[in-house]
This record gives sequence, structure tokens and C-alpha cells, in this order.
Amino acid sequence: MKRFVRAFARVRGEFSERLYILGFIEFMVNYKQRVKALFDGADFDHALVSSSESLRYFSGFAGIGGAYLFLRSDGTSRMFVTELEAPDAKEASFDELVVIPKNKKFQEEVFKAVAGEIGRGPLGIEDSYVTLSAYEEMKQYVGNWVGVSKRISSLRMIKDEDEIVLIKQAIKISEESFLDILKEIKPGVTENHVAAELEKAMKERGAEGVAFPTIVASGYRAANPHAVSSDKRIRDGDVVVVDFGSRYRGYDSDLTRTLFVGDVGEKMRSAFEAVYETQQVCFHSLRIGSSLSEVAKLAITNLAKYGLDIYYTHSLGHGVGLEIHESPYLSVTSGDLLNEGNVFTIEPGVYIEGLGGIRIEDDFLAAKEGVTRLSSLPVRF
Amino acid sequence: MKRFVRAFARVRGEFSERLYILGFIEFMVNYKQRVKALFDGADFDHALVSSSESLRYFSGFAGIGGAYLFLRSDGTSRMFVTELEAPDAKEASFDELVVIPKNKKFQEEVFKAVAGEIGRGPLGIEDSYVTLSAYEEMKQYVGNWVGVSKRISSLRMIKDEDEIVLIKQAIKISEESFLDILKEIKPGVTENHVAAELEKAMKERGAEGVAFPTIVASGYRAANPHAVSSDKRIRDGDVVVVDFGSRYRGYDSDLTRTLFVGDVGEKMRSAFEAVYETQQVCFHSLRIGSSLSEVAKLAITNLAKYGLDIYYTHSLGHGVGLEIHESPYLSVTSGDLLNEGNVFTIEPGVYIEGLGGIRIEDDFLAAKEGVTRLSSLPVRF
Repeated sequence: MKRFVRAFARVRGEFSERLYILGFIEFMVNYKQRVKALFDGADFDHALVSSSESLRYFSGFAGIGGAYLFLRSDGTSRMFVTELEAPDAKEASFDELVVIPKNKKFQEEVFKAVAGEIGRGPLGIEDSYVTLSAYEEMKQYVGNWVGVSKRISSLRMIKDEDEIVLIKQAIKISEESFLDILKEIKPGVTENHVAAELEKAMKERGAEGVAFPTIVASGYRAANPHAVSSDKRIRDGDVVVVDFGSRYRGYDSDLTRTLFVGDVGEKMRSAFEAVYETQQVCFHSLRIGSSLSEVAKLAITNLAKYGLDIYYTHSLGHGVGLEIHESPYLSVTSGDLLNEGNVFTIEPGVYIEGLGGIRIEDDFLAAKEGVTRLSSLPVRF
Repeated sequence: MKRFVRAFARVRGEFSERLYILGFIEFMVNYKQRVKALFDGADFDHALVSSSESLRYFSGFAGIGGAYLFLRSDGTSRMFVTELEAPDAKEASFDELVVIPKNKKFQEEVFKAVAGEIGRGPLGIEDSYVTLSAYEEMKQYVGNWVGVSKRISSLRMIKDEDEIVLIKQAIKISEESFLDILKEIKPGVTENHVAAELEKAMKERGAEGVAFPTIVASGYRAANPHAVSSDKRIRDGDVVVVDFGSRYRGYDSDLTRTLFVGDVGEKMRSAFEAVYETQQVCFHSLRIGSSLSEVAKLAITNLAKYGLDIYYTHSLGHGVGLEIHESPYLSVTSGDLLNEGNVFTIEPGVYIEGLGGIRIEDDFLAAKEGVTRLSSLPVRF
């Protein structure tokens, strides 16, 4: 009840009407259950996490800086923060808070406290996040560790309803913002201007920030799939690739649209049709249990019908959630199968040096009743 | 000469007149010399780096995604990228480029190629960047490694002239943008709106992006030093802390100003004077060779004169460069001394729950002739 009152008060104090409802949903998140799930079938009973994604996932902590969360298989937890992070920590969910004063070495104090409770281990640690040097320091205190990154990734791959609500909101913010600034995409305007307007629109609509630096690549620059944005001006006859996403309360969205400014020529027009068809073919091929390397191969096969597979340089898609790129991966080397609860992108593309590029990307959910598209932005403007 | 022509062409094609000059300076960066310096006095002759900062520092690579750079003590290098990163790689500086096709496992191919050249090692790796799981994969190929993160950090701590030019440009963009949007900071406006306008202004002025999500914290929220921005509206009588920075061609700036909207009361007004005095006292106390823990203690002592040290919860400052927080650190636990070429912040602050907070932050350079302030934004508006 105490927590209810606190969450309610916070929501009333800080957020708009719309966010109030989401704030209430967030409050309902059962962090304890997530902590317990981490230890399902495990032969260790403790873990120490510190990536910003894990801090959010297991406690709702939304701070920027360093914090450690010590987790127990009974669902209880203990959060360690610096004085600087103490205000953010108070908004999070845990059983005990330890604030380490600034005249102490933060990491060392955390490792000492953990060793004090569990001795030499075993301790679950985020092996895909902890660096070698942090590990060298930690092992002086807790030498017996087990990697838990794959376990966490497997948990996070299956989105619960609360998470889907937040991802949908991140998508909605992105889509509305894109429609807001569509009129800016015209000859004479710089790519940087378009990116700046789009990022501003997302922030004004309640995004925490961008999920990644917005890509606006026009004309010949569109042939580079990772071109970010530049001072180049959009010219008549340019294709314009816009790859963008907002972050909403920790959760990302990821969309790409390709626009034609004037006459982009037959080659780009037909590439657009082929890429869009490929996205649709891949989408409709997917079922719960589908092989994600097979769907990635299907994209290549479909583009090959038009002789465009040689211009397709990246993988087909990736999971989206607390990270912009996370499991599962839709690539020819992926070993993943599609599972209920997966949220992911499908984003085939074609890039022709000197001429430009085409990419179309949407966000999808593998729901019980089948794969559905979460994004609803038109592809033609 | 070939490189000269390429850089020149790129600059003409993509950047404005002002950037042309900077583009030319960038071209002059002697990456080979940086590579050689990494091995100065080392008992190993090869290193493999992959953090985005190291890729920038040793080759100028500005891509987003995965790439590995293999470095040799003779200054030569070999870059490994996926097909996706190949266009970005072409802008970078190296002796050989290896593009790994998307049907191969990228990391594995890189490790195999490195082992093919140097056998089991020794290989310098970024121990403060490489994760345990990446290391587990790598050690199947190259088992004998040496951590080079401290070496790289020591090199990067000493900024050369080219780097200082870029940092100054990042500061200039931030300052001009702040002055542009100053009029937006008024009662009734949300923190998110101010942050969105500021981030847009920085992007329009040529920033690659933000150095970190802009903090706009007003009224009671200003008591949290890491408050980012929210839907809270600025009210008459609020202090407003704005902590912001742009990233320009990889290099960051970091500034904080605290504004008064209407009458913020005597306590906040006098805290402002104490914080500003503390920043100035610390700045003027610094000489080449100064102990950075001593200056951090001086900040506490100076705030204690006003009984404000109990409200000061973070460290005094940090290095700024390719990362927003990097060595050297100005904190009571720091072991660093001030060296010529260091670029760093001084940012004392005072945070009083329920009332608000004050922070003033500028960027400084330890030059041969003494410590100078790089930022020139007024502190009172």
C-alpha cells in the first residue's frame, strides 16, 4: 500500500493525464517475480547486476549512473548506489537500499558487502556486460561466478504485457512525430535539420530520448545503411532514408521509412517495391516456432528474384526492448526460433553506391494468435 | 597524396565552409603516431581494439556498429568490418581493410585472422571494454593477453591540438545553442520542451548528437543532480539546472548553468554564490602537477564555510574527450595529478531536498602556460 501511494503521488506530481495511466501500469510490474524467474532451475541463489537494462528490468531503476543490484532466488534484492544516485534509487523497487558515501571506493564496497553475505560465491554476474578489468577487481572478493547474461536475455526476449504497453507507446511517439515533421523533408533542407526536428518532436511528445541517433540519409548518402545525418542538403531526385526511434521509460521503438523527393528514377522505384514486398513476404511467413535464420534466407531469396540480393548488406532484423538491438536476431547465422512474446523488427534494405538506398522497417510482436505488426505508419507518402 | 585528395573531396561534398577547415585539420591527424605511442615501452607488439572511442582515436572510424582494429607497434593497422560498416570504414585511416561477409560469424573471423598472424599472443586488449563473454570466445584463439585500457586512457588524457580544436567546437555549439533557447526558460514551459529545443539547436548547429541526454531539472526536481528532464512545468520561483553538451566529430562538451525563474529565495541565491565561488577557487588553485584529490577536497572545504558541504553529493569533475566521463577524475579518491593536455570539468553543486539545487560547470584545459577556461558562457542571465 505504501508503494501504491508513492507511485500514485509521483505520477500525479510529474506526468500528464495520459502518462498517469501508464504510470499506474508501471506500478503494477511485479519485479519480485522477474527476480525469482532469473533463478528458475539454476544451481546458484545470488546474482549481482549493474547494466542499466538489468537495473530497469529487475527494479525499475531509471538512473543514469552507477548502481548495483544484488538479487536473491527468493525474489528479494538489495540496491547499492552512490550518493549521487540516491534520489533516483528511491523511485525504484527493492528490499534494501545501501548508499555508499563518496569518500569510499564504490565498486570495492559493493563487492565487500556481497562477499560478506555469500562468501566466495557462486554469484551470477552479467558476463556480456562485466568487463575484464571489473572482473579482476571483483574476483578478489567473490571468485566463484556464473554468467547470467544469456538467462537475462532469455527472460527479456519474452515481453510481458507491461513491456508491450511501453514499447507501443514508444512506437506511437515515433510515428506521430514522424508525421509531424514529414513536411520538412523537401529540397534545400539539410539532413541534420530533419533529424533535429524529428528528435525534438519525439522529446516533446514524452520520449525519454532517442533510442539511437536518428539516421537521415539522402541521395548518394542513402547507400550507406548507417549514415546518421549530415549537413548535406536534400535535393530534388533524392531518396531519403529516415531510421528513427524514441525511448519511452526505458523501452525502444525502431522504424525506417524511405521517401522519394521528386523523381528518383526507375531503379530506386522498383527497388522500393521489391524491398516492401520482401518485408511483407517475411512478415507473413512467420509463425510461433519459425526459424529466424530461415526467414533471413527468405529475404535474400526474395530480393534475388529482382537481382537485388547483392545490394543487401545487413541482417533482416533484431529484437527490440530495453535495448535497441537485443535477442532474438533475424539473421542467416541466428540459432533462434520465434517465441511468443518476442518483439522484433523486419527491415530488408537495398544499397546501391552512387545512387542511394531503400530500407523499410517496422516493429512486430509474436503474439499467441500469430505475428502482428505493432507499428502502423504508412509506407508511402 | 591520395589520402589528401580523398579527404578534400569528402569535405567539399559534405560540409559547410566552416567545417571545411576543421575537415582539413582532421585530415592532418597522425593516426600512425597514436598507434606507435600505444606500444611505447611495451613488451608486446600487437593490440586489438573495438570500442567506438578507440576506433575513432586510432583510425578516425566514425561508424556506429561493430568493427575491430588490429594495431601493430610499427604503426600499421588492419581494420575488420561487417559489410554494413564497410561504407563508414572507407572514411577511416588504416593500412588494410577486411570486410567479413554476413554469412560468417564476425568476431570468430576476426579472432581467427589475428591468431593467424600472431599465434597465441601476446595481444593487447581493452580490458575495461571487453566483456567476460567476448573474452571467453577470444581466448579459444588468442589466449595470451595484456590489458591496454589504462595505456589508452593515459594517451587520451593528453589531448593534442587537433582534439582541442574539436572539443572547442563542441563547446561553441553548446554555448551558442544555449543562448538561442534561453528565452524558452520561463514559467509554464515543460522541462522536456526546454531540453528538446536545446538538443535541436545543437543538432542544427552541426553537432553529431548530444554528449548525454540533456538534464533540465526545475524546482524540487533540481535537488536530484541526475534528473534528466520531465513533463514538469517550470514555475515562478523555480531554480532551473540545465546540464548539457554536444558531441562534435566524436568529441564532447559538458556545461551546466543554473537559472532563477522569479524569486527563488535567499537560501538558493546564497547557495548560487557559494557554488560559483567554489568553482572559481578550485579553478584558480590548479597548476600543472596539482593533486586532483586535493582540489576535490578544497571544494568541500570551501562549501563548508557556508555550511553547504552536506548538500554536495558528487565529485568535483572529470575529464572530457571522446567520452563524456573519462580520466582524469577530480574526486577525493582520485590518484591523478593534473597534466598538460588534460581537458576536464569543474562542477561543484549543492542539492537541498524539497527546495532545489545549484550546479555550475565549465570545461577547462591544462595548457603549458597554466589552466585556462575553454567555455565562455556567462553564469548569470
